[in-house]
Formats: sequence, C-alpha cells, structure tokens
Amino acid sequence: MMELNGGQCEYFGKITVIGTGPGDTEHLSKKALEAVKKAEVVIGYSSYLKQIGDILSVNQEKMPFNMKDEIKRCEAAVKKSLEGKTVALVSGGDAGIYGMSGLLLEIIDKESLTGKVPVEFIPGIPAFCAVSAAVGAPITNDFCVISLSNLLTPWEDIEKRLRAAAAGDFVIIIYNPKSMKRKEELTIAKNILLESIDKNRPAVIVKAVTRPDEETVITTLENIDKFDIVSMNTTIIIGNGNTYVNDLYMITRRGYGNKYDLSKKDMMEEN
Amino acid sequence: MMELNGGQCEYFGKITVIGTGPGDTEHLSKKALEAVKKAEVVIGYSSYLKQIGDILSVNQEKMPFNMKDEIKRCEAAVKKSLEGKTVALVSGGDAGIYGMSGLLLEIIDKESLTGKVPVEFIPGIPAFCAVSAAVGAPITNDFCVISLSNLLTPWEDIEKRLRAAAAGDFVIIIYNPKSMKRKEELTIAKNILLESIDKNRPAVIVKAVTRPDEETVITTLENIDKFDIVSMNTTIIIGNGNTYVNDLYMITRRGYGNKYDLSKKDMMEEN
Repeated sequence: MMELNGGQCEYFGKITVIGTGPGDTEHLSKKALEAVKKAEVVIGYSSYLKQIGDILSVNQEKMPFNMKDEIKRCEAAVKKSLEGKTVALVSGGDAGIYGMSGLLLEIIDKESLTGKVPVEFIPGIPAFCAVSAAVGAPITNDFCVISLSNLLTPWEDIEKRLRAAAAGDFVIIIYNPKSMKRKEELTIAKNILLESIDKNRPAVIVKAVTRPDEETVITTLENIDKFDIVSMNTTIIIGNGNTYVNDLYMITRRGYGNKYDLSKKDMMEEN
Repeated sequence: MMELNGGQCEYFGKITVIGTGPGDTEHLSKKALEAVKKAEVVIGYSSYLKQIGDILSVNQEKMPFNMKDEIKRCEAAVKKSLEGKTVALVSGGDAGIYGMSGLLLEIIDKESLTGKVPVEFIPGIPAFCAVSAAVGAPITNDFCVISLSNLLTPWEDIEKRLRAAAAGDFVIIIYNPKSMKRKEELTIAKNILLESIDKNRPAVIVKAVTRPDEETVITTLENIDKFDIVSMNTTIIIGNGNTYVNDLYMITRRGYGNKYDLSKKDMMEEN
C-alpha cells in the first residue's frame, strides 16, 4: 500500500457515508454531526449540501454535484480518499435507503479497493419516519417502501412490487412518485393498487417534510394522484386494512384492541 | 377544558413521543435529545430508559415499565399530561415503527381527548438502518419490514406477507425473529421464503446493533435459523435478487451497472 499514489500518501483517508435525515439538521444524530464536521472534504448532491450548510465550516472543501451524478460523487470520494483526505459522503434520509452506500461499495469493489479504502456508514432518519411523525402513526405495523422511479429499476419490477405490497396488506410507502419527466407513473401505480385495495383506504401525501415548505394532505387512495404538491420531494403513505383517520391523525391499529380492553376509562375522573 | 382535573390544571402537558434510535445515544437526533431532557416525566420500556440513562437528570421522574405493558405506558403518559406535566414517551428505533405512537393515539381517541392532549412525534433512526450500516449496503432498493411476532398480528397475516415479500423480490427485513416463547417461527418463515427464493440468497443477522454486545453474521437464507444470536434484539436482512457479498460487505446493486459504465478506471493511476 505504501507505494500507491506516488508514495505521497502513507494511507488512505476514511470515507464516512452519512445519512443527513429528512431535511432540518436538528434531525441529525450526534454521531452524524460530528462525522460531517470532522471531514476534510464533504461530497453530495448540491441540495443536501445546502441543507446542511449551517453545520459546515469555511475550512472544509465542499464538492456539490448535480442529481444523476451519483457515480461521479462516489468516484470523487474514492479519489479524495486515495489522496489521504477524510471524506464525508452525504445522502438525504438514511444513506442505505436509495442513497450512496451501495454505489460507493460497488465502485470500491470494481477498483479492487475493498478493505483498502476505510469506509464507515452512519445511519440517518429516513424521510418516511418524519412523514409518519408529521401525521400521527400511519405505519406502526409491517410495511413496504417502493420507489416509482424507473431510472434504475425496470418498470415491470415496480408493478410487481406494487401488486405484492397490496396482496400482503402492507402499509405502502411510495418514494419518488413523480419527476419532471415521469408524470403518469403515480396514476398507473394507483390503478394497480385499486385492483385489490378499497378506494377509500386512507393515504397521506407529504412534501418537503421538516423543511420550511412542508405541506401535508390526508386523503384516500383514489385521490393520491390529484394534488399539485406531488413531486420528487414528496412521500406518500397508504394505510393497511387497519388504518383510520380521525380529526387530526392518521393511525394504523397494531392490534391491541383485539387482544386487550381498550374501552374508555375516564382517566380525567380518576385524577 | 378549564374545569377538568378539579380545576387545578389550566391546560394539559405536552406528550412528546420519541424514537431513541437503535441503542447508543450518539444516534439520537438533537431534536430528540432536547425533547427527552426537557420532559418532566420520562416513560418507556425499562430497557430503553436504561439505554438513555446517561442523558436523563435526577430531577426527572422516570416511569419504567415491563415489556407487554404498552397500554399502561400510554395510559400513564395521558394521566401525567392531564396533571399538566410534560411527558417524553420513548420507544426504541423510530416510535412510529412497531413503537408507541399508534397505541398512544388510539388510547387518546378512546378517551375523547384527540386535539385536547397536545402530542408531538419526533422520528428516530430505525434499528434496521443501523443494521444496514453495520454490514455495508444490503437494502439500497425497495424493501419490506415484517415482524414475526404474532402477539398482535395473526400468524396467517405474517405468512401472507412473507409470501408477498418474496413474490415482489423485495429486500426483506425481519424484526422479532424469536422470543422466549416463539422458537419455531423463524424456521417456518424461512421455509416459506425458500418456496420461491434461492437457498444461497445472502442474508445478515445482527444482534444488539450499536450496543456493546453487538454481533453480526453474514450467511445465506437457508441458514438464518441456525445461529444462537437470534433473539428479540436481533434483526435479519435477506437480500433481493441483486444482492451479493464480498470479503467485507453485503451489497444490493441498485442498477447503476445496467445503465452506466461501472468498469474499473484505475483511479490510483490517475492521481
């Protein structure tokens, strides 16, 4: 290893892959925050670097990239590591869910650098957890997460997963429901789900969760494709057969009511 | 509202439902940390209160409960709120995933207190994100989370979901694979998955992720029920058709290799 890189570098810099959470940096873990601050180079999609701008310092090298430049981001991280720099490679949400973790390891593998470049993964709060928190408790039980983006996954696979998710009575979480180029997929997905799920099944649409422009709509399955707020920054959660909505919240019953007495107990009287 | 509780209390205390993350408190978000510290009463499963012991102060009232006392925990939270106390109701991981969020809202609903008791939900890092981070990038694409506990969910529903998860070629995350009383479910689940998934499909078993007694085994689907470390504190991830294992990591290919050139580029030469 000593001869690599013209002998200028005795060892490679560590790459820490960090999930920055749903948006607001108050949702970053202490561990993630410290790792971002400690890195000499911070690499990521430009929007995510902007989102965490308040925790970066002037002394850190920032390498913002465009959307779809994921390979370039990972290659940049590896190159900086080979130069001996410590790197923070950041993804929104959790970096292991549709984030940079997998691609980085694939690229390290292709370069025969597995085990040579030190890599650490720091988990983050996925967007869907913040979406759930914004509307109450729509998940609570078994669930699926499906991205409608067919950029990397064949559309037939996505359709197969939508049918499987409906067959399993999972709570269904939809990522990437729409983009500039993909405008019809959400309606196609809805129609697949409507083959076996009631049209009145509760659903929630949340745009830009935890960010200043957050917007929430609680609706039903048949209407999930009828709101302007749906974009790449939007997450949709469709309930399972035990999901209901009250004046304020979307709630999926876990099943306590079937097993225990959940009748009214007049707690206020007891006090 | 003014007359409630003998008029002693002008308004109810806020209940903040907090996901404390996978274990180590360095994975708590700043927002979660501050909410826990600010609460007058901290309520939760005794093990979770112990886990976050280092961030609690002597001035806070702690109400630890046993496992299966979930209803009592929520009722205690509501009672303390009615007494005007601010409450932190804590769950491991994210409180919206098999946590206290749903049950609390159900109980508030039954007591006709929806909108009267102020509630806030603060998301946390789910255990499976930390498990993923511990072994590389086993998720990366669409996935399902299924609990094998049939305490609240009928076993037929769990079997249906396992079959659906396999049919959809999801990455499959299994929670609660085994308990003191449930010893056979993991083998039954494995056999259901083996009906349509190859026995050599990569899988990982992680016990007590981020905690001092963390243990990890990378194995294959046919062997997931053959390790002593499997318990209630264990998470299992079974890859999809694009998952592979190298010397160090478990990686699910997202699909970049189908669309872009991921061949070796000799980055070290370029430097």
